[in-house]
Amino acid sequence: PPGRKVLIVYAHQEPKSLNGSLKRVAVEELSKQGCSVMVSDLYAMQFEPRATRNDIVGCLHNSEEFNYGVETREAYKRGDLSDDVIEEQKKVQEADLLIFQFPLYWFSMPAIMKGWMDRVLVQGFAHEFPNCYDSGLLKNKLALFSFTTGGSKEMYAKGGISGDIRYLLWPMQHGIMHFCGVKVLAPHICFAPEYVSEKERKKMLVAWAQRLKTLWKEEPINCSPEWYFK
Amino acid sequence: PPGRKVLIVYAHQEPKSLNGSLKRVAVEELSKQGCSVMVSDLYAMQFEPRATRNDIVGCLHNSEEFNYGVETREAYKRGDLSDDVIEEQKKVQEADLLIFQFPLYWFSMPAIMKGWMDRVLVQGFAHEFPNCYDSGLLKNKLALFSFTTGGSKEMYAKGGISGDIRYLLWPMQHGIMHFCGVKVLAPHICFAPEYVSEKERKKMLVAWAQRLKTLWKEEPINCSPEWYFK
Repeated sequence: PPGRKVLIVYAHQEPKSLNGSLKRVAVEELSKQGCSVMVSDLYAMQFEPRATRNDIVGCLHNSEEFNYGVETREAYKRGDLSDDVIEEQKKVQEADLLIFQFPLYWFSMPAIMKGWMDRVLVQGFAHEFPNCYDSGLLKNKLALFSFTTGGSKEMYAKGGISGDIRYLLWPMQHGIMHFCGVKVLAPHICFAPEYVSEKERKKMLVAWAQRLKTLWKEEPINCSPEWYFK
Repeated sequence: PPGRKVLIVYAHQEPKSLNGSLKRVAVEELSKQGCSVMVSDLYAMQFEPRATRNDIVGCLHNSEEFNYGVETREAYKRGDLSDDVIEEQKKVQEADLLIFQFPLYWFSMPAIMKGWMDRVLVQGFAHEFPNCYDSGLLKNKLALFSFTTGGSKEMYAKGGISGDIRYLLWPMQHGIMHFCGVKVLAPHICFAPEYVSEKERKKMLVAWAQRLKTLWKEEPINCSPEWYFK
């Protein structure tokens, strides 16, 4: 709906890939709805995935023994995080909905996107004990994981060789987003696009556009063990 | 035992950290046993976590549309992967046991270590359909995930707010190591070391050294959904 803000965190090297097309479809459809859409194109930005001392501008809280969690928490308070992290935090702060668009790498997100999680979701910004899970600091936001797989739907079925696809969503949806208070919409999964016809891939794009039309009416999933492992 | 080779893939910024100490304890104890120990100290190496075109030396298989999986598979065959990846693959090839030592970041490994998985475990080297899972190309090797957590043991209990710690091991142990044919030893977990006394942290180091003394007699876990979600 008009006025809603969406951040798409996108991790694919190739604009012509299905992931690239899925990202473009989302930008188009959501813009058409009157949403304002921001995109963090991680590879194009050469986004830094490594959590290092460089993320803190100026002096350290404890330069004797470097503790990344403590240092970034303190730097956040002082406004001394590195510019690229602050930039991403601003986008997250503004957004009503976060869409993560990526190819599944090793039952998880590509390292460049994991680095975005590691570096952007700093204590004090995204969570601050006891403000985690339902009372996480990013509550009132929504997240949606949209990804492509190498394996087929059959491999990722319950009893399939790779196990129910929901098993691998636990760390991403519950461990990251829910921990920060973000409500999670059902994932959007395109299984094994490399092994289907061009026509089937087109259908995948249409299905995504279609889903986005009524996305704002969706209820979040119940992000508890039952959803994942029942 | 004498002659066994171990690769420790280590991801912590600070040598004085508990992770740093756990790594040192492993090097010492395993060396004492007569093992030859290699260490990939990812932050010290400034290891590149991003999966990009730079991982392929020379021309691309398909320069019209970049596909990381296809390009690295082809580059591996030609011997045209980047030097840092080849270097790590050599270490993996030599090793009987891989130990991953890291602080848990967001229910998973730090991005720098995820990048190691993404870039090193190339198709043709670590797996090649149908050679995956029990027939993965790295069979006859062992892996062990050794990590520290922020959350307490109670939070990571079944029914705890963060769910059974085993839930989050599925992508790492099954999705990565088992997929490549590697047998998985029980994880070694130090819960919430930042919130215990110096004395308790010392005990954690002693317990790790102790476990390593009989490590080679351990049976791998049964890396199937029952172990994780029973």
